[in-house]
Amino acid sequence: MAAANQPPGSAPGAPAAPAGNAATAAGRDAFRQSVVNTLERRLFYIPSFKIYRGVAGLYDYGPPGCAVKSNVLSFWRQHFVLEEGMLEVDCPCVTPEVVLKASGHVDKFTDLMVKDEKTGTCYRADHLLKDFCKEKLEKEPNLAPEKVAELNHVIATLDDMSAEQLGAKIKEYGITAPETKNQLSDPYPFNLMFQTSIGPTGLSTGYMRPETAQGIFVNFKDLYYYNGNKLPFAAAQIGQAFRNEISPRQGLLRVREFTLAEIEHFVDPEDKSHPKFSDVADLKFLMFPREEQLTGKSSTTLRLGDAVANGTINNETLGYFIGRVYLFLTRLGIEKDRLRFRQHLPNEMAHYAADCWDAEIECSYGWIECVGIADRSAYDLKAHTEKSGVALVAAEKFAEPREVEKLLITPSKKDLGLAFKGNQKMVLEALEAMSEAEALEMKFKLESNGEAEFQVCTLNKTVMITNKMVSINKEKKKEHQRVFTPSVIEPSFGIGRIIYCLYEHCFYTRAGKTEDEQLNVFAFPTLVAPIKCTVFPLVKNEQFDTVARDISKELTSSGISHIIDVTGTSIGKRYARTDEIGVPLAVTVDSMTTVTIRERDSKAQVRVKIAEVASIVKRLVEGQSTWGDIQRHYHDAHGSPEEENAPEENA
Amino acid sequence: MAAANQPPGSAPGAPAAPAGNAATAAGRDAFRQSVVNTLERRLFYIPSFKIYRGVAGLYDYGPPGCAVKSNVLSFWRQHFVLEEGMLEVDCPCVTPEVVLKASGHVDKFTDLMVKDEKTGTCYRADHLLKDFCKEKLEKEPNLAPEKVAELNHVIATLDDMSAEQLGAKIKEYGITAPETKNQLSDPYPFNLMFQTSIGPTGLSTGYMRPETAQGIFVNFKDLYYYNGNKLPFAAAQIGQAFRNEISPRQGLLRVREFTLAEIEHFVDPEDKSHPKFSDVADLKFLMFPREEQLTGKSSTTLRLGDAVANGTINNETLGYFIGRVYLFLTRLGIEKDRLRFRQHLPNEMAHYAADCWDAEIECSYGWIECVGIADRSAYDLKAHTEKSGVALVAAEKFAEPREVEKLLITPSKKDLGLAFKGNQKMVLEALEAMSEAEALEMKFKLESNGEAEFQVCTLNKTVMITNKMVSINKEKKKEHQRVFTPSVIEPSFGIGRIIYCLYEHCFYTRAGKTEDEQLNVFAFPTLVAPIKCTVFPLVKNEQFDTVARDISKELTSSGISHIIDVTGTSIGKRYARTDEIGVPLAVTVDSMTTVTIRERDSKAQVRVKIAEVASIVKRLVEGQSTWGDIQRHYHDAHGSPEEENAPEENA
Repeated sequence: MAAANQPPGSAPGAPAAPAGNAATAAGRDAFRQSVVNTLERRLFYIPSFKIYRGVAGLYDYGPPGCAVKSNVLSFWRQHFVLEEGMLEVDCPCVTPEVVLKASGHVDKFTDLMVKDEKTGTCYRADHLLKDFCKEKLEKEPNLAPEKVAELNHVIATLDDMSAEQLGAKIKEYGITAPETKNQLSDPYPFNLMFQTSIGPTGLSTGYMRPETAQGIFVNFKDLYYYNGNKLPFAAAQIGQAFRNEISPRQGLLRVREFTLAEIEHFVDPEDKSHPKFSDVADLKFLMFPREEQLTGKSSTTLRLGDAVANGTINNETLGYFIGRVYLFLTRLGIEKDRLRFRQHLPNEMAHYAADCWDAEIECSYGWIECVGIADRSAYDLKAHTEKSGVALVAAEKFAEPREVEKLLITPSKKDLGLAFKGNQKMVLEALEAMSEAEALEMKFKLESNGEAEFQVCTLNKTVMITNKMVSINKEKKKEHQRVFTPSVIEPSFGIGRIIYCLYEHCFYTRAGKTEDEQLNVFAFPTLVAPIKCTVFPLVKNEQFDTVARDISKELTSSGISHIIDVTGTSIGKRYARTDEIGVPLAVTVDSMTTVTIRERDSKAQVRVKIAEVASIVKRLVEGQSTWGDIQRHYHDAHGSPEEENAPEENA
Repeated sequence: MAAANQPPGSAPGAPAAPAGNAATAAGRDAFRQSVVNTLERRLFYIPSFKIYRGVAGLYDYGPPGCAVKSNVLSFWRQHFVLEEGMLEVDCPCVTPEVVLKASGHVDKFTDLMVKDEKTGTCYRADHLLKDFCKEKLEKEPNLAPEKVAELNHVIATLDDMSAEQLGAKIKEYGITAPETKNQLSDPYPFNLMFQTSIGPTGLSTGYMRPETAQGIFVNFKDLYYYNGNKLPFAAAQIGQAFRNEISPRQGLLRVREFTLAEIEHFVDPEDKSHPKFSDVADLKFLMFPREEQLTGKSSTTLRLGDAVANGTINNETLGYFIGRVYLFLTRLGIEKDRLRFRQHLPNEMAHYAADCWDAEIECSYGWIECVGIADRSAYDLKAHTEKSGVALVAAEKFAEPREVEKLLITPSKKDLGLAFKGNQKMVLEALEAMSEAEALEMKFKLESNGEAEFQVCTLNKTVMITNKMVSINKEKKKEHQRVFTPSVIEPSFGIGRIIYCLYEHCFYTRAGKTEDEQLNVFAFPTLVAPIKCTVFPLVKNEQFDTVARDISKELTSSGISHIIDVTGTSIGKRYARTDEIGVPLAVTVDSMTTVTIRERDSKAQVRVKIAEVASIVKRLVEGQSTWGDIQRHYHDAHGSPEEENAPEENA
């Protein structure tokens, strides 16, 4: 199966992380630690089943994390499904074996595993080998240059190694189980699907789907009909996918259950142009084409239109989706210069794929594949056509019938029978199976010599064919339509990975009231902020509380998620608490007629009438106004005394 | 486990469907058939993996169905999570065995199954018995009254029958396998959870969760902390749940994978009042209290406030949620007079539950449980506390310390030793283990007689206790807080069932152009309509097409799902096609300055300026204006000629 169809994994063959100097690595780890601490403390996520000591690779989204996820998915629906008129479907996770047999997952969705021969603990063979090589390179500065080259070569070619090759390297390097130092078994494939049984008999094997795409492919016929039997069209699906990782690591990046959002865009293989390509052609961003990777260069800023025009990107439709993915990710808050589109190297790509690009986002773990955008050609529809016996094809009806020239091979059974007797059938079949080129060659020989030598594989010999035995002619035929298997272009989004990278890109700290107090802030764009607004009475006071509650009611009926906090804690603390979960706007009630609205990152405030608060917040949240617009229209307000005098305001 | 916590099933003990006369039943079946035909033809849903001949009990939502589902869930979030400030979480489906052992699902989440002894085909034992009784009642009008009573009694008590009782009845009635008439095995329990294995070793059993609630319970401690260690608060979760049904039937109502939306509202068991109860107290709707069911009456319209005040509904919080569920369902489009709240009978309720009500919706299958609203007391948190060793409790801090009287039992080891020698320890432990009542009785006897007889179970004999051996005194103690396990009130929504009932409630047919042409309409409220608006040029014309495309762009940027259809099919056909998927508004472009907007059910039209279309549609979709408002503000337009002259307009 295509790499892009698998839940994203860290990019093979690409520099895994910023250069390995210790200071940088330590800084990166410390940064990650403070992000993760904040995320866990504020319940953005929670290790699942924590009171039972958890399960590796399973995480819950707590309240703010769940809200961020829900916002990301809403925006995904708006940006892709609604704006592109896609057909969204929702299929079950439980999938019968026959479907995943056809897709290739039952046979090939595996990782190579080794077992500690005494304790039975399991490891991914490639991880152990990679860790060994990396550690050696880091800890032994005086390695011979040939050894360095060898280890780097092993790391670069890990993904292409067979079980035998991996096993040989593990033996050669004397790698043992990390904790116990026991001997390891030979590597063997472990299927990553969670297996189950459908129905009570125990006879019907099922799996939890490893991706959502198959649910779309098997519905192609109905969806094509729904779309008025017209191409191109796209179907989309958001849902859970499952992958029984051998030994999950990298926190939220490699998990056993995750949300995928996938698009399958079905297109005529002979026309991959896209009517809206010009909308994205002028976008410029970081791309990392195959050529640059193979020649050791780094990623480079290209204009999307040029990359398609000069063939770097295979076709317009693939290019269009790359552009739309770029817009999606940057609007969510992913930093432009830490996002690149990396083309798959030939060894990463399935044989049938026409081209494949990953949107990779840089975070403390390195460059992480978050979206795969692949032109999978006709592979999936053909596989299901073959296995199910239902033709998953499209037809192009011609405006008027077209005359086509076809080569017609007409053997003469009588003459073949006379010449070849018992072998007649084999010769006849071989003649009918000739390619157009072979037939044309024979036609030429028969016309010039009256006979032609002909190799019959099933007889394992060469026979002589004469003029009488076969006639080969070009004939004109009228055709009313062209029937073909559509190509599919598949953008596949690992939602959890995008969200984790977003957390890292949005996180920063700033000085608090005292010099050594560091306050955490998530600078989420309003679009993804888990809570859009807080409402605080400046001091504990019944009248202010009433105003705050009235504003809260209005926000609720406008559908704006917010928190009201009437605890009377110091306003500075309340701001700090909500900055830490990335609330962009804070309404502070300090009079009976007007209130202030504070913006999270600038800490700037404007003063507005109470009656206007909800509509201003709504406009900001829905993106109809920017903070700049609001500042121009309303008076700047002085901060509340408590915060105004805080040292960080003058810093 | 509580019935309400199970994925909803048809209401036991309640009349299953409108009275069984054949004409009604036939009409009901025909109605269902036309709904289901329309739903399947327009891809509201699709039997999953259809090209592989499907899997019983698994369905896909196709494009319009998926949009309806997404709208229902958005409204659920707005109505519950946002308006009530709930903490939404998102936990994995894969769940380790220990969690479902604690909740009771591993041991008790079973149905009784019988097997065809020759073919191995499995059946639900209760279904076979119920079918047998019903068929006999329907097909044999001359049954003796005692036999009728007996069969009705069997149907009514099915849910309480043990495996032995079911088996005995099946034998007594000579029930055999429906298709083959072979002998059946004795009934035995089949666990309905899909089982799998977590990680590569095969040693760690997991299940696909049968409900989402457990994910919330195990997070109670973190969520309570997140809420500032304050009660009450509610957590919510939307997600997939799985149930490996023995033999699914009833189409979309009994499926093997489904979306649940669940709320766990944690509350002090000593104070189940609700601050917002007055908001719903005046609602009047159909309730079916236990008393009415047991005395053979039918459901009755009650005022919610009265039902809580007179104790019919156990407490205010439970009542508040019943009211909110009523508002939720009716706003979605469920008919008021086909919705009732039925209280569980004592035999349906788990021993620990304080009270339980089901929102039942009437459809062609009868009254269907779609939402369960249960006061589950402290059961779940106690079960996980016990199994995990982590105290899932809340504390009420007293404003000032409270003096409490405690009974102190102080045995004298010396005197007990002298009297009982080797048995001393057993007597001492028995004394310390006395209940307050026992201790007070002993205190009274010791004070009046100087001695008291005392039964020591561990010694299996009665001993004589004297004054010297134990002192029993009331002592006053200061306490700073009260620590307790919260009660949980759980509204649990079967989203798929609600949607199916909504389809039936919204479906109607009306005459088409010819007398015998019947057109299908789904009268979805705008809130749930899969597509809000269509845009049609009246005739095929480049200028009209351009206007239509401009309107479409504006609708897209307002986030309004719509279809643009420039095929030039007759306008009547285009209306019919979109009425059939419940599109409420149609914009027809018939000039370069103004267009008409048509409302689906009345077929009334208004004429508005092109520049205003998007904002009018937006207001209608977001509920800021009604169609009546729009009609008052804008001129009524004549329908397009094609539809205007259609006979149904004059009917």
